[in-house]
Amino acid sequence: MAEANTQRRGRGGGGAARRAERTAVRIETAKYIERNIPNFEILNDEALEIIEANAETILEEVGVNFIENPGALELWRNAGADVDGERVRIPRGLARKLCATAPSQFTQHARNPEKSVVIGGRNLVLAPVYGPPFVRDVQGGRRYATMEDFNKFVKLAYMSKWLHHSGGTVCEPTDIPVNKRHLDMLMAHMTLSDKPFMGSVTDPSRAQDSVDMCGILFGKDFVQENTVMTSLININSPMTFDDVMMGALEVYAKNNQAAIISPFIVGGAMAPVSVAGTLTQVLAEVLSGIAYSQLIRPGAPVIFGAFVTSIDMNSGAPTFGTPEAAHITYGAGQLARRLGVPYRSAGSFCGSKLPDAQAAYETSNSLNMGLLAGVNFMLHACGWLEGGLVADFEKFVMDADQLGVLHGLARGVAYDENAQAMDAIREVGPGGHYLGCAHTQANFKEAFWKTELLDYKPFETWEDEGSRDTRTLAARRVEHLLANYQQPQLDPEIAAALAAYVAEKKASMPDAFM
Amino acid sequence: MAEANTQRRGRGGGGAARRAERTAVRIETAKYIERNIPNFEILNDEALEIIEANAETILEEVGVNFIENPGALELWRNAGADVDGERVRIPRGLARKLCATAPSQFTQHARNPEKSVVIGGRNLVLAPVYGPPFVRDVQGGRRYATMEDFNKFVKLAYMSKWLHHSGGTVCEPTDIPVNKRHLDMLMAHMTLSDKPFMGSVTDPSRAQDSVDMCGILFGKDFVQENTVMTSLININSPMTFDDVMMGALEVYAKNNQAAIISPFIVGGAMAPVSVAGTLTQVLAEVLSGIAYSQLIRPGAPVIFGAFVTSIDMNSGAPTFGTPEAAHITYGAGQLARRLGVPYRSAGSFCGSKLPDAQAAYETSNSLNMGLLAGVNFMLHACGWLEGGLVADFEKFVMDADQLGVLHGLARGVAYDENAQAMDAIREVGPGGHYLGCAHTQANFKEAFWKTELLDYKPFETWEDEGSRDTRTLAARRVEHLLANYQQPQLDPEIAAALAAYVAEKKASMPDAFM
Repeated sequence: MAEANTQRRGRGGGGAARRAERTAVRIETAKYIERNIPNFEILNDEALEIIEANAETILEEVGVNFIENPGALELWRNAGADVDGERVRIPRGLARKLCATAPSQFTQHARNPEKSVVIGGRNLVLAPVYGPPFVRDVQGGRRYATMEDFNKFVKLAYMSKWLHHSGGTVCEPTDIPVNKRHLDMLMAHMTLSDKPFMGSVTDPSRAQDSVDMCGILFGKDFVQENTVMTSLININSPMTFDDVMMGALEVYAKNNQAAIISPFIVGGAMAPVSVAGTLTQVLAEVLSGIAYSQLIRPGAPVIFGAFVTSIDMNSGAPTFGTPEAAHITYGAGQLARRLGVPYRSAGSFCGSKLPDAQAAYETSNSLNMGLLAGVNFMLHACGWLEGGLVADFEKFVMDADQLGVLHGLARGVAYDENAQAMDAIREVGPGGHYLGCAHTQANFKEAFWKTELLDYKPFETWEDEGSRDTRTLAARRVEHLLANYQQPQLDPEIAAALAAYVAEKKASMPDAFM
Repeated sequence: MAEANTQRRGRGGGGAARRAERTAVRIETAKYIERNIPNFEILNDEALEIIEANAETILEEVGVNFIENPGALELWRNAGADVDGERVRIPRGLARKLCATAPSQFTQHARNPEKSVVIGGRNLVLAPVYGPPFVRDVQGGRRYATMEDFNKFVKLAYMSKWLHHSGGTVCEPTDIPVNKRHLDMLMAHMTLSDKPFMGSVTDPSRAQDSVDMCGILFGKDFVQENTVMTSLININSPMTFDDVMMGALEVYAKNNQAAIISPFIVGGAMAPVSVAGTLTQVLAEVLSGIAYSQLIRPGAPVIFGAFVTSIDMNSGAPTFGTPEAAHITYGAGQLARRLGVPYRSAGSFCGSKLPDAQAAYETSNSLNMGLLAGVNFMLHACGWLEGGLVADFEKFVMDADQLGVLHGLARGVAYDENAQAMDAIREVGPGGHYLGCAHTQANFKEAFWKTELLDYKPFETWEDEGSRDTRTLAARRVEHLLANYQQPQLDPEIAAALAAYVAEKKASMPDAFM
C-alpha cells in the first residue's frame, strides 16, 4: 500500500493528540476475533467434492438469471458463458476460475485506524442486526423504527466492547423518505461511531452516494485504493440476480469496496428441502455472483455469504437455531474456505417475538455454530428478533454480552508453564482450596470471561433487588449506555462537508416513501 | 452374554403381548444419539501429552487422599502405590494401567428393553437434572422439593421424547426422611417410568438397597451379569475420595453396576484458575478414581466424569455457559477418549434464577459444547436452574425440547442421491420455488427438526393468543403432559415385591432428617 494512500484527510498534525486528550471516557473495543481453535468440519471430502461437482453441473445445465441487466449479459458472453435471454449458463469451471482473483482476505478501514478490521483468514468480525422495519423495547413495545431508534443503535454498537463493526441498516428509519434515508444512516455511522460500517444497496445511486460520502470522510484517493465499506448484496434465490442489487454491486466493485454475495434462503422454499441440495444451490449462486464481481473488477473484495435457515412446514415461517441451519452453516464454511474467500453467515437469529428463552436458545445455537463454522464476518450478531422483523433494544445488549463468550472460546487453550499450573496443584494439594494460592492471585483477573449483564448474585440478594429477569437487567443497561454515550471526535471540516453533501442531495429530489 | 442372563424375571410368556395391547397411548422415546458428526478437538497432541504427563507427575508426587477407608489403602498398597497415612501416591503409569480393564462402552439395561442404552463410543445418552433441593414453577414459585415434585419430574422425563434416561435424584424429596427417600425415589423410577435410571450414592447401605431393588425388578442373576444402573460418584476435589462416595462405588463396582467417577470443580476454587491446570487435576482425579474401581472389580463399568465450571471471582459464585467451561469440556472429552472410557459432562447448566434468556443462553452454550465435545452420558440435560439449586418445571420441558436439536445436529449431513436434490434444482430453476416440487413433497416430513414448544406463528396470531413468552408456553406443556401421563405396565408381582421391600426397609429404621 502506497504511503500516500494510508494518509487520511485531516488526520495529520497535532489534532490527533488533542483529540486523544479530550476523549477522557475511553470506549473499549475488542480486537476482531483471531481464532486459535480449529473449525468444525462436518462434511467429508467426498461430500464436498460431490457438492462442488453438482454446483458446476447446475451452472452449466440450468444456469442463473441476470434480470434487466444487458451489461451483465454482455460481460458474461464475453467471458465465455452461454447467454440465452436473461439466462446465463456457465461452462464447468469458468465461475471458479473467475473467482480466483478475489482476495482471500482484506482490510476494511475504519476512520479510527485502531478499529479497522481484517476480514478473512481465521478472523471473525462481528456486526449488529441489519434490516428490521420494527423495533421493540420493554417500555415502548413493538413499533415502526425511526431515525431516532437508528441513532440509538449506532451509539449502542459504538459502546459495545465485543462489536467490531457498526453494521448498516441496523433498523429501517421509516420516518425518513425511502430515497433519502441512506444519507441519514451513513451520516449516523460516520459521525456517531468510529467503527467500520456498511454502504447502501437499495439503488445504484445510493451506493454511489455511499462511495462519495466515504470520499469526504476518508479522502477520495484513500477510498479508491482501500476498502472502507462492506455491503450486503443479496441473491434472489433460486439463482436470480436482480438489477438493483447487481447495480449496487457494480458500483462497489468498481470502487474497490467489499460486497457480501449472499443467497437469502429459507430451505424448502427458495432451495431444496435437503441440506446437501441447499449447499449445492448456495455454492452455484455464490460462485456466479463472485465471478460476476470479478468480471466488473478483478481483485474486488468479496465475501461468500450464506443466509440460510429452515422452515416450519406447517406455517411456512422461517425457523432459527435449528440443526439443519447449523448443518448448512458448517458446510458452507467449508465450501468458502475451499474457494479461498472470506465467509459470512450466522447471527443472533431467532423466531421468538420476545427476548425470552426461545430467543436466547435460538441465538446461542446460531452464535456457537457461527464461531465454529469459521465465519469471518457475522452480520446480525446482536439485536435480531422475530425472524428479522424487529431490532430489539434489550436483546441487542444481551446478545452483545454473549459475543464476549465467542471471544473467550476463540482464544483456545494455553498450555505454557503458567497455564499448566503445576506449582499451584503442588501448593494446594488434596483437600485444599485454590482461591488464595499464588497462581490464582496472579491469574484470576484474566482467567475468566466476565459478563456485563448476567446475574450471578446469591438468590437472596437477587430477590431483594426485585427478582429481575434478563430483559429487565438489559433495559437498565441500554439506559445506562445511552446516558453515558460520548460522541467520538471528528474533524469539524469533514463533519460540515458530510452535512453539506447530505443537505444538497436531499434538496435535489422529492421525498419518496415507496 | 449367556442366554439365561438376558431373561428378565416375569418377562416370558404371553404377558408381554397382552401388555403391549393394553398400552394404547404410545409414548415415543428417541433412540440414544449415535453421532454421525466429528468431535470438536480443541487441544493438539502436544497439549494432550503435556497434560497427561503432568497428571502422572501429580499422582506420583502429590498423590490423592482416600479418607477413612483402610480397605482402599490396603488395595492401593497391594497394587504398588506408596501409601502414607491417607495419602496415596501412585507411581507413573500405574493408574492408567489399572484403567485398562474398564470397558470402553457398556449397555445399561432398562426394564423396557427398547429403552436400554449403550453408553460410550460415539453415543450420547441424555438424562435429566440431578440433585436440586428446590423446585420452581410459574404458579408455585421457588420452594423446597417434595416427593410429589419428584414423581412429576419422573413422569415428565418418561414422556419426553428426547430423554433416554430417567436420571436419579431429579430433585431432593425433602419431605421424606433422608435415610428413606432413596427407596421412594427408586420406586418412582422403577414404576412410573420404564427408562433406565440411577442408584443412590448417599450411603453404601443405600447403594445396596438400589442393587437389591434392581434384583427384584430385573431378577438377581440378571443384575449380577448386566449393568442396570449408572450412578454418580463425585470426587471431593482437589484429589480427595471420601468414604461415603467410595463406599457406594465399592457396592456398585462389586455388583457390576456403572459409576460416573466425577470431579466436581468450580475452577479457581477446587482446581487451578487455568484450563490446562484444571484439566491436569481432572485427569489425575479420574485416573485414580477409575483405577480404584478396577481394583474393586476389574471390568466394572465406569464413566470419566467432569463437572467443571468457572467462577465469578467477585462473588465466588459458579458461572455457566462460559468459554472456560467449554474449553475444559472439550479438552476433558479428548482425555477420556485417549483413556478409552465413556465420558460424562455438560448439561442444561445456568446460573440464572429464572428460566429466562440468561438461563437459555447459558444452557444452549453448554448443550452445544456437550454434543461436540463427544459426551457419552449427559446428566442434567434438562431442568437445571440457579446453579443447580433448583429443578424448574418449565425449564425442564424447554430444555427437553432443545435436546431434539442435538439429535438433529448429530445426524450429520446426508449426501446420497436423494439428498443431493439435483432433480429438484433442475425442476424449479431460477426464480421458481420449492414448496410444491416433488422432492420437497417426498422429503419435507423428515427434513427438519420440529419443536413441540417454541412459537413460530405470525405476529398477529401470537398477539391474539396472549403474547405468550416461552415460560408461559412451557407451563402449558407441563400441565398437558402431566394430564396425559399413563403409567407404563409392570408385572403386578414385581410391583408388589418392590413395595414390600420398601415398606420393610422403612419400618426397620427411625426417620432421619440430617
